Amino acid sequence: MDVYEKSLQLHANLRGKFEVRSLVEVKDKESLSLAYTPGVAQPCREIAKDPEKAYTYTRKWNTVAVVSDGSAVLGLGNIGGLAGLPVMEGKAILFREFAGIDSIPIVLSGQDADDIVKAVEMIAPSFGGINLEDICAPKCFEVERRLKEKLDIPVFHDDQHGTAIVVAAALMNALKLAGKQLSAANIVICGAGSAGIAICRLLLECGVMADRNGLVCEGGPWLTSAQAEIAKLTNRKKLRGALADAVQGADVFIGVSAPKQLTKEMVQSMAEKSIVFAMANPEPEIYPQDALDAGAFVVGTGRSDFPNQINNVLAFPGVFRGALDVRAKDISEGMKVAAAKALAALVGDDLARDNIIPSAFDKRVAPAVAKAVAEQAKKEGLAR
Amino acid sequence: MDVYEKSLQLHANLRGKFEVRSLVEVKDKESLSLAYTPGVAQPCREIAKDPEKAYTYTRKWNTVAVVSDGSAVLGLGNIGGLAGLPVMEGKAILFREFAGIDSIPIVLSGQDADDIVKAVEMIAPSFGGINLEDICAPKCFEVERRLKEKLDIPVFHDDQHGTAIVVAAALMNALKLAGKQLSAANIVICGAGSAGIAICRLLLECGVMADRNGLVCEGGPWLTSAQAEIAKLTNRKKLRGALADAVQGADVFIGVSAPKQLTKEMVQSMAEKSIVFAMANPEPEIYPQDALDAGAFVVGTGRSDFPNQINNVLAFPGVFRGALDVRAKDISEGMKVAAAKALAALVGDDLARDNIIPSAFDKRVAPAVAKAVAEQAKKEGLAR
Repeated sequence: MDVYEKSLQLHANLRGKFEVRSLVEVKDKESLSLAYTPGVAQPCREIAKDPEKAYTYTRKWNTVAVVSDGSAVLGLGNIGGLAGLPVMEGKAILFREFAGIDSIPIVLSGQDADDIVKAVEMIAPSFGGINLEDICAPKCFEVERRLKEKLDIPVFHDDQHGTAIVVAAALMNALKLAGKQLSAANIVICGAGSAGIAICRLLLECGVMADRNGLVCEGGPWLTSAQAEIAKLTNRKKLRGALADAVQGADVFIGVSAPKQLTKEMVQSMAEKSIVFAMANPEPEIYPQDALDAGAFVVGTGRSDFPNQINNVLAFPGVFRGALDVRAKDISEGMKVAAAKALAALVGDDLARDNIIPSAFDKRVAPAVAKAVAEQAKKEGLAR
Repeated sequence: MDVYEKSLQLHANLRGKFEVRSLVEVKDKESLSLAYTPGVAQPCREIAKDPEKAYTYTRKWNTVAVVSDGSAVLGLGNIGGLAGLPVMEGKAILFREFAGIDSIPIVLSGQDADDIVKAVEMIAPSFGGINLEDICAPKCFEVERRLKEKLDIPVFHDDQHGTAIVVAAALMNALKLAGKQLSAANIVICGAGSAGIAICRLLLECGVMADRNGLVCEGGPWLTSAQAEIAKLTNRKKLRGALADAVQGADVFIGVSAPKQLTKEMVQSMAEKSIVFAMANPEPEIYPQDALDAGAFVVGTGRSDFPNQINNVLAFPGVFRGALDVRAKDISEGMKVAAAKALAALVGDDLARDNIIPSAFDKRVAPAVAKAVAEQAKKEGLAR
């Protein structure tokens, strides 16, 4: 059986990957009168007087909704909310397993941005945070922006920012090994979807200079507004051209696009000690051995079967853990940078060409990321 | 400490009454690849091909949302969704404890009927059923009706139908003891809110004759459309008057109104072997001993400290368990009647004036109700 058949069997056996458990035993009239009526009226009254008390008397403090309209699920495209539910349940249990968070999968019947924003706004009081998932670009940018404005709890589109944080961490370490500076690196990002744009934004926050590298994507009248905005920032010389032109002399290639975009010849044309992150899934832009053969110094992918797996499970559990721990109102760019730095720092003395990022199963990861995120939230006055 | 102080302390200690657990251990690359990417793509593909497969590969089959806008929470009135969250968490754990259902509390930030309907419709794919809770009348009728039309999963407003089912069961048994027939009984319902109207509708389904008892409520131009509709059915002679006029000669008084509505004199004016259900909470329309002193034959309340507690925890767990077990598309009037009959039948030979309804902690209750509901759903072609 391959991984797909095995997974299907697992799902059929479990009939769902999570369960909701009670933390109170309701075994007699007294326990019922405390957990439910009439006693439960008292925490209700307290919260009615002071809404912040919801963090004391309910599970809001530890609960994150994983919300998706199923418009861009894995590499499967727009399969709709219901068909995306196995992914959201998977994400929910990763929140539990990696960060002790109670996470609820919420898949939506509609895909209109207004409807998504309204629905999430309506259900938000139950939750301490909202993780948006598998919503297609450019809708995901608008949905996230509007929800961040409306809600006083953290909203985080993991496909954008989770990926960006882990890429930034991996890049910090890879550049360190190569003896290069972020501020001097010539970086090409291939793929201007939600992940590509978020990576670009976060790297600019991390100190990448926007006018050093000209070409983010092949520009043209078909750019979305998010792409055009990024191009304005990063492509000041208004260069145009193909990927082969862009990578020539580049220090770093970051691929969040499609299989086989990067050839050995292109890698050969890159600068000395080049760094290649080929994260298209399941088939990367270039296979690691090919990139190494062509002279790449450090290679990472999104896959668990090669070294240097750039996996956003390294980011989202700790990011939300930290945000929930200080009841952060938002997840800022600063908090994401702090998460990336904390993640990079964990590798420490074990830093090597095939070890630029911790393993997904390194127990230190979520607590370290959470601590950095919480501290940064406090610094920025975003903690309550 | 009284029950309120004790409950507040319990809530502060627990910080929420439920938790979300993972049913899969994610401990290494292999388990991650099966529960999450890439393996999880396979159940997604299967559901995309056949939406019914969501009941096989996800938790939808066992998951019920407890949804409230907090507009009528317990006796506390309109305290809003967030302040109602402790009640919804309580309800969620009762679903777990009494019927093994995974239940998610969802409290809403808005109270407009259109917004509630839209939000529930949007999040419905995640759930196998929707339990509406603590939504004020008459909005609750509209919200429920519209959602039942739109959704292919059961929608059930517990404040209406849960209460109605348990009242119907208790009444069947009380009338049996009194040697009277439902179809011949003269019944007065005091309180024409959501519970009163639902009780009236369900009793009509159970065989109460609508034209025997004239007066449901004091009629007038201020009747809501739901009330007017009921009055048209039940008050064909267009009688008007006060409660004292209505109860004169009545066999049954059902109170879902306010404390102290029913006096001893009124009970004395009722028929022989009268039945008094005084369910205003926490203080009943008349205290049991007063009703008995005035000649009532059987007395019930909503309280756990008197005999004959008419408690909707006897209904909703089994109703949803049965509906989920057969993937019912709806919860019909017939399914509610079946639930009431099953509940009444459980008392059996133990039937007595102070034992007309099973205890909330009788382990036979939820399975018996579930079985009856599931069978009725199949009979009506509502099972999948």
